[in-house]
Amino acid sequence: MSVLGLVGCGLLGGSFALAARQQKCFSTVLGRDRSRSVEETAKRVGVIDDAWSSGTSVDAVCIAVPTQSIAQTVESLTSEIPSDTPIFDVGSVKASVLRELDDVPSNFIPCHPIAGSHTSGPEAARSDLFHGSVCVISPTSSTNESLLGLVEEWWRGVGSRVITMPANAHDETVALTSHLPHLVSAAAVEMLMNRDQSTADLLGSGFKDFSRIAAGDATMWRSIFVDNLDNIRIGFQDLAARIERMLALAESDPAELERKLQRIATFRDSINGE
Amino acid sequence: MSVLGLVGCGLLGGSFALAARQQKCFSTVLGRDRSRSVEETAKRVGVIDDAWSSGTSVDAVCIAVPTQSIAQTVESLTSEIPSDTPIFDVGSVKASVLRELDDVPSNFIPCHPIAGSHTSGPEAARSDLFHGSVCVISPTSSTNESLLGLVEEWWRGVGSRVITMPANAHDETVALTSHLPHLVSAAAVEMLMNRDQSTADLLGSGFKDFSRIAAGDATMWRSIFVDNLDNIRIGFQDLAARIERMLALAESDPAELERKLQRIATFRDSINGE
Repeated sequence: MSVLGLVGCGLLGGSFALAARQQKCFSTVLGRDRSRSVEETAKRVGVIDDAWSSGTSVDAVCIAVPTQSIAQTVESLTSEIPSDTPIFDVGSVKASVLRELDDVPSNFIPCHPIAGSHTSGPEAARSDLFHGSVCVISPTSSTNESLLGLVEEWWRGVGSRVITMPANAHDETVALTSHLPHLVSAAAVEMLMNRDQSTADLLGSGFKDFSRIAAGDATMWRSIFVDNLDNIRIGFQDLAARIERMLALAESDPAELERKLQRIATFRDSINGE
Repeated sequence: MSVLGLVGCGLLGGSFALAARQQKCFSTVLGRDRSRSVEETAKRVGVIDDAWSSGTSVDAVCIAVPTQSIAQTVESLTSEIPSDTPIFDVGSVKASVLRELDDVPSNFIPCHPIAGSHTSGPEAARSDLFHGSVCVISPTSSTNESLLGLVEEWWRGVGSRVITMPANAHDETVALTSHLPHLVSAAAVEMLMNRDQSTADLLGSGFKDFSRIAAGDATMWRSIFVDNLDNIRIGFQDLAARIERMLALAESDPAELERKLQRIATFRDSINGE
């Protein structure tokens, strides 16, 4: 019988727990959450088998807390967990976590499954959340290779394709593919608050798609913005310059704007899975 | 037997034609398109019954061409069509069209159905495209009231809720709810072009939702950007200021950023239809 210790029982951690148990990577999941009610809900809906009390030994630990708390969680676990027990996280930022750790323990495997939802909490957890997804792993020079292999196997078990990427490259890329889009979408939604009913009447399916991510968990996103701020800032400068360029083309050279929009539309169409 | 003349046989015009015939607003649809192949496809897939040759009389005209060509189309139709035959459009910008017309004919009813898709062309037309949608009508002081009533009835017939809004207010609002989001989404997609495979690996469902609109018809969107440029520029200044403010809060007051993100997420959740 192998036991997973889960720290943070929300959407991502809960989904990993459900999937990993279903795939028999673990037989039992013990969980803890800084919110007592989230922990109780996780137990009630079957995401965890029981609360994970301090001192109970486990065979692996999944950390699914906001990025800002990951390093601290790793450090407190190292006093509780043997150094050959794998610890992995699911955070959307990697470099800041590694920077915060004085020594990166060899049993800590930094992971980021590219999966999620605009819903959150243990009730939103789904055993198929990782089906067909990609899981990025960012090993460091101190990472224990055999523990890395185990963690990769679990991610493949729950349906992910594992790719390896250095933490900095990962953070710079997800700033563009995820963090900046979230920020922009949130700001676009904010613009519509406090307007009258006619604005709500004019929201079509395009805006609903565009803004769906803005409904995501505020605590998690606050932490991501803080932890990947430099990359997001650089990304926004680039984005703003591209927007200004398109606005200028609308005035000076609409035919060139159309060609650009056509290239963009063709590229967007090529992205797998609509 | 009543006949609709359709100018522009793409997604929107084609969907109106399919729906209006299905709902028996018209028995026959005759169509024309500046692209011969679009016109032929529209006939082949049953969006139009036949080509609309100059001189053949119709009972109403639906103009579904890029916004830049609407005024010119209205003007050329007034020499072909009696002044008591209703002409209506489906364009996403209203004020520039009215400005371009020397005299707004009393039989021209400016309409904007809030419906669409990232797909385009007559093959993408669907008779249910307007089900549950809103259609904005922007009458002018010269609009013929009884023709306005007829056009409203057809929109209700195809499944729209009709609301009335002055052209300027409409254009300012859709700049925020549709045109600016499209521009931002397109620029965000452009940022990812010419990057390596690992970027494509990291695109999750959030980015796919956020960027779906960027696959829209380039000719249509070029025309919208040109015709509503001032409102989009003003909107982008506001959006950029909100983004800068959130980035500043990530540095100076993350707790306030979280409260802001929470208010935004709650508001986004309240938008009907996810």
